[in-house]
Amino acid sequence: MRRLAIIGVGLLGGSVARGARAAGLAKEIVGIGRDPARLQPALADGALDHVSTDLAEGVRGADFVVLAVPVLASERLLERVWQTADDDAIITDVGSTKANVVAAARRLEPSRRVAFVGSHPMAGSDRSGYAFSRADLFQGAWVLVTPTESTEPRALKTVTEFWEALGARVASLDPERHDRVVAAISHLPHLVAYALVDAVTRFEPTAFEFAARGFKDTTRIAASDPRMWQEVFLANREALAASVDVFRRALTDLEDLVARGEATPLESAIAAISRQRESLR
Amino acid sequence: MRRLAIIGVGLLGGSVARGARAAGLAKEIVGIGRDPARLQPALADGALDHVSTDLAEGVRGADFVVLAVPVLASERLLERVWQTADDDAIITDVGSTKANVVAAARRLEPSRRVAFVGSHPMAGSDRSGYAFSRADLFQGAWVLVTPTESTEPRALKTVTEFWEALGARVASLDPERHDRVVAAISHLPHLVAYALVDAVTRFEPTAFEFAARGFKDTTRIAASDPRMWQEVFLANREALAASVDVFRRALTDLEDLVARGEATPLESAIAAISRQRESLR
Repeated sequence: MRRLAIIGVGLLGGSVARGARAAGLAKEIVGIGRDPARLQPALADGALDHVSTDLAEGVRGADFVVLAVPVLASERLLERVWQTADDDAIITDVGSTKANVVAAARRLEPSRRVAFVGSHPMAGSDRSGYAFSRADLFQGAWVLVTPTESTEPRALKTVTEFWEALGARVASLDPERHDRVVAAISHLPHLVAYALVDAVTRFEPTAFEFAARGFKDTTRIAASDPRMWQEVFLANREALAASVDVFRRALTDLEDLVARGEATPLESAIAAISRQRESLR
Repeated sequence: MRRLAIIGVGLLGGSVARGARAAGLAKEIVGIGRDPARLQPALADGALDHVSTDLAEGVRGADFVVLAVPVLASERLLERVWQTADDDAIITDVGSTKANVVAAARRLEPSRRVAFVGSHPMAGSDRSGYAFSRADLFQGAWVLVTPTESTEPRALKTVTEFWEALGARVASLDPERHDRVVAAISHLPHLVAYALVDAVTRFEPTAFEFAARGFKDTTRIAASDPRMWQEVFLANREALAASVDVFRRALTDLEDLVARGEATPLESAIAAISRQRESLR
């Protein structure tokens, strides 16, 4: 790789830079952002070779471009990247939802010979910003890539190998399926965790004083970046709403078993769920 | 303490034995259980001095008795302990709900001069059994004690000092308040975690393959012992049901904000919740 351009040098973009540097994946690594002061730490510690606050300038000459900004910004910036990238450049992103950004890329496809493959590295954190980035953030993490029938095999291969070189396991899902999967495994749990913290605040706020490991683990993701999650929820609102409906039914079923007061069916239901969860250890 | 009797030598009872042994709290420690084979490991490693499968025999001569069995068994066994304990013996328990067991003790109070103070060490785990017990399980953990207006000050003092000697922080709550607090901070989160795992199973079971740290932490408590949790849910069903109602309203409020599709009010709501959660770090 000649020149790797990373748009947004926060937790994920910064970890891409550090990981790519550590693995020697690119001759040059360029970081692009709006605020020069925020790009300085990555330049100072050698994760980046150059920084730019000008998208077109930063992307010029890059054969690989990573959009590492929140999902709505990715969709918005994709068109400008598409217009200014070199011929045959490959673009990917790190957004938590894929149907919208992939649809935006498909609309751009006829205009120029650059390629987009959506990526979703499942390595987020309740911490954000470059200060928390790590060269090994993607080590052992899943990265879901979302090609379509018009994706060039060469581009899919390059993006897959890129994430594998950063230590990730890569799986390929179509964009709509991806959005259902992440609604289930990530967006629904975040919404539920926020609701749980809010419920304690409303029901018995003195209880926070006695929060132990169980409550803290269950609600840790409710400390996640509100800006990012607002965007994710809105970007994936259809799959999220469908998953919330299913969750509400599951909760009501358990609640009904408790209300009936019969130990055996309640214990059977919990035991079946518990076995399912045990299988994830 | 002359003789400490522990009824039920699992995770909590075993940790009481090990902790009391390490702190030199009792001359003799007796473990009581139905299955002699299950008591052997604690006898073999020196946490217990004697074991018994006979409740009356085990409790005889004890000045301090800890009921460390599931909540319903505690309520059931309390009467026999009360009848067979020595005069002036102090009894406590480790159950997750307190209103019922405290009410049972109050009914027994006129019959004999033994004392009961309810305890709830908030140091559970998704692992159970003596094999997971530790001398330092209560170190830094909260233990909620639930005296009533008829509790002897001497008994409250002894129970409080007992848990403090095991390294715990002790707070005193009335039993009904206790049950609301733990519904909010523990029982509701468990029910929600079970519902969350069940919802993923129903909505998109392939998603489990991609479960990352966020999902695993959020649902870790759904791997907890089904028998124990069935009992806890039923024992605390009123406060639990009230907390589920509040949770459902909190979830619906967030869902409505997502459905309206307006970024600013959604982000404000999430940010307020996130700050609340941040304060628990």
